[in-house]
Amino acid sequence: MSTDKITFLLNWHATPYHAPIFLAQAKGFYKEEGIQVAILEPNDPSDVTEIIGSGKVDMGAKAMIHTIAGSARGFPIESIGTLMDEPFTGVVYLEGSGITTDFRSLKGKKIGYVGEFGKIQIDELTAHFGMAPSDYQAVRVGMNVSDAIKRGEIDAGIGLENVQMVELEEWCKEQGRPPSDVKMLRIDELAELGCCCFCSILYIANKPFLSSHPEKARAFMRAIKKATDYLFTSPREAWEDYKLVKKTMTSAVNEKIFERSFVYMSRDCANVPRDWQKVTSYCKRLGVVPATFKPNMSNSFLSWQLAEQDDAGAEEKQRAIQGYQMQVAKRGEGILGGFEPELGAGVGVGVKRAELVA
Amino acid sequence: MSTDKITFLLNWHATPYHAPIFLAQAKGFYKEEGIQVAILEPNDPSDVTEIIGSGKVDMGAKAMIHTIAGSARGFPIESIGTLMDEPFTGVVYLEGSGITTDFRSLKGKKIGYVGEFGKIQIDELTAHFGMAPSDYQAVRVGMNVSDAIKRGEIDAGIGLENVQMVELEEWCKEQGRPPSDVKMLRIDELAELGCCCFCSILYIANKPFLSSHPEKARAFMRAIKKATDYLFTSPREAWEDYKLVKKTMTSAVNEKIFERSFVYMSRDCANVPRDWQKVTSYCKRLGVVPATFKPNMSNSFLSWQLAEQDDAGAEEKQRAIQGYQMQVAKRGEGILGGFEPELGAGVGVGVKRAELVA
Repeated sequence: MSTDKITFLLNWHATPYHAPIFLAQAKGFYKEEGIQVAILEPNDPSDVTEIIGSGKVDMGAKAMIHTIAGSARGFPIESIGTLMDEPFTGVVYLEGSGITTDFRSLKGKKIGYVGEFGKIQIDELTAHFGMAPSDYQAVRVGMNVSDAIKRGEIDAGIGLENVQMVELEEWCKEQGRPPSDVKMLRIDELAELGCCCFCSILYIANKPFLSSHPEKARAFMRAIKKATDYLFTSPREAWEDYKLVKKTMTSAVNEKIFERSFVYMSRDCANVPRDWQKVTSYCKRLGVVPATFKPNMSNSFLSWQLAEQDDAGAEEKQRAIQGYQMQVAKRGEGILGGFEPELGAGVGVGVKRAELVA
Repeated sequence: MSTDKITFLLNWHATPYHAPIFLAQAKGFYKEEGIQVAILEPNDPSDVTEIIGSGKVDMGAKAMIHTIAGSARGFPIESIGTLMDEPFTGVVYLEGSGITTDFRSLKGKKIGYVGEFGKIQIDELTAHFGMAPSDYQAVRVGMNVSDAIKRGEIDAGIGLENVQMVELEEWCKEQGRPPSDVKMLRIDELAELGCCCFCSILYIANKPFLSSHPEKARAFMRAIKKATDYLFTSPREAWEDYKLVKKTMTSAVNEKIFERSFVYMSRDCANVPRDWQKVTSYCKRLGVVPATFKPNMSNSFLSWQLAEQDDAGAEEKQRAIQGYQMQVAKRGEGILGGFEPELGAGVGVGVKRAELVA
């Protein structure tokens, strides 16, 4: 006996930035669009592209670099939208660990990584900085990057500015340490990528599923767009709704992660072609895809006007986001306290993108 | 491209009683048995039998009553073992809610239930007590039974003695109320079932998966048995290991749930034929399966000696467990504090079952 339910596998345990996926359920948007969605959570993020690629699960969420690498390995997966754009990603460490802003300070250190690509990225950087992969000790820690740093099992670990850094900042506060003790060596800066889009979190699907159920995929994305609009129109109410349906959200650290994730959330939920070009090139440089690789993404399942690409302001946008995030960290509050992202002229930060779409 | 990974969907978000499933991963037992397992968590427990039945996921965990009902609806699922035996299940309420040990006190109350079967069970009891289903208000609350009671949205809800009661007891302590304010009307007693085996949590699998991969199912259960043995031999270390791989376990309430779940954990991981007979009859009485229904379970995937069935001591066993649980609740510690279940003569509680197997 078959089921009409779309199975959707998150890239990580439920996290504040997954809000649109849960809100679409809680607010009845999936139902309005005539679909039923079973949201599943993994216990090993490295399972996700393989399970979706093999068709065991229909859809899910995954970072761009993994979506590209999974396709290159023969798993038929395609991105049909974006959940979160370019969250700052890098080597997260604590003041006093002996690590500095100089990448070479990682020599002799234990660096934690989630799956295999974090290690591939660091290994590639070692050559760039006159080191070898053997100059540091890579420790696969899966979903436990922050905890492994807290326990002193690793000196640093690969993580996101809006997740692992926040977890460590809150822990520092508990320890009586300033949250500014948490630092990041940004991979985009070290690798001269111009953005952290390799870590953009995408909506992905099994390709045979897309071929046989294109209307389900379109309905799913319409529901997600409604939930995203609600998130931006009423962030406080949206956060309360999310906490009601997902009790693990009810914690001080998750509230902070919600606030720090807000600026990265995709407004139009679309794949950004410029970012795909950059990350495809980066993946070729890393040797994880062949030179002939074509981006496995499409915006054809989105039925609304997409934001215009604003190539010129990309760096300015990055700086504006960084500035806003530092303010949020310093003030101890963000969108939930009414502190909204400021808009630089022509910069595609948060609200600006929405205006382009509206 | 296919995957060799077995997908395994929990019946609920990760909970302390899922320890063997996670320990088998953490201790490398799946790997030793030559299998890879992707542990997935649902966000709606009502999805589980449908998703496994449709073959979208290979295996999982589910309560006996749902496993039987899912099969009766045409989803080809089979139980191949037991994770947790007969946890006390019933209508959980707080002192002062107006509910008493008399079932009829539920009249006019709002009763929360998880999926549809809790409501079916309560509805059946209403007739028994001279009431109608319309005499109470049923509220479907999914995974949020305890929270809905805390928020006052429902007067009572269907839950487990070792999970929802513990959550409410810990909340009562925070509120300055005695934990003994948390009460339960046990469904097994009200319905004169003789055990709460309808709520035993089983290892289940998609039947076509079992037919095509019997060796994988056997290997899975061997790994689970190793993890279970480890849990009983070294409960403190096992709990530490579980917390390391699943950070949501690190909370005071989950530690208490671990201690209160310990006595229910199946030692030999086997289906109990007596319990299956009882619950099949109960399901016929509830009208959820036809009179011709045959139990969809097998112990043929287990390759060790199973505990002997001890029919005579069943009631005594229930009383012994209840006594132990009350002691654990009162002392505020259980197996982690070195307080082990006591053994009545001939009673199959905890350690006794293991002795029968060894």
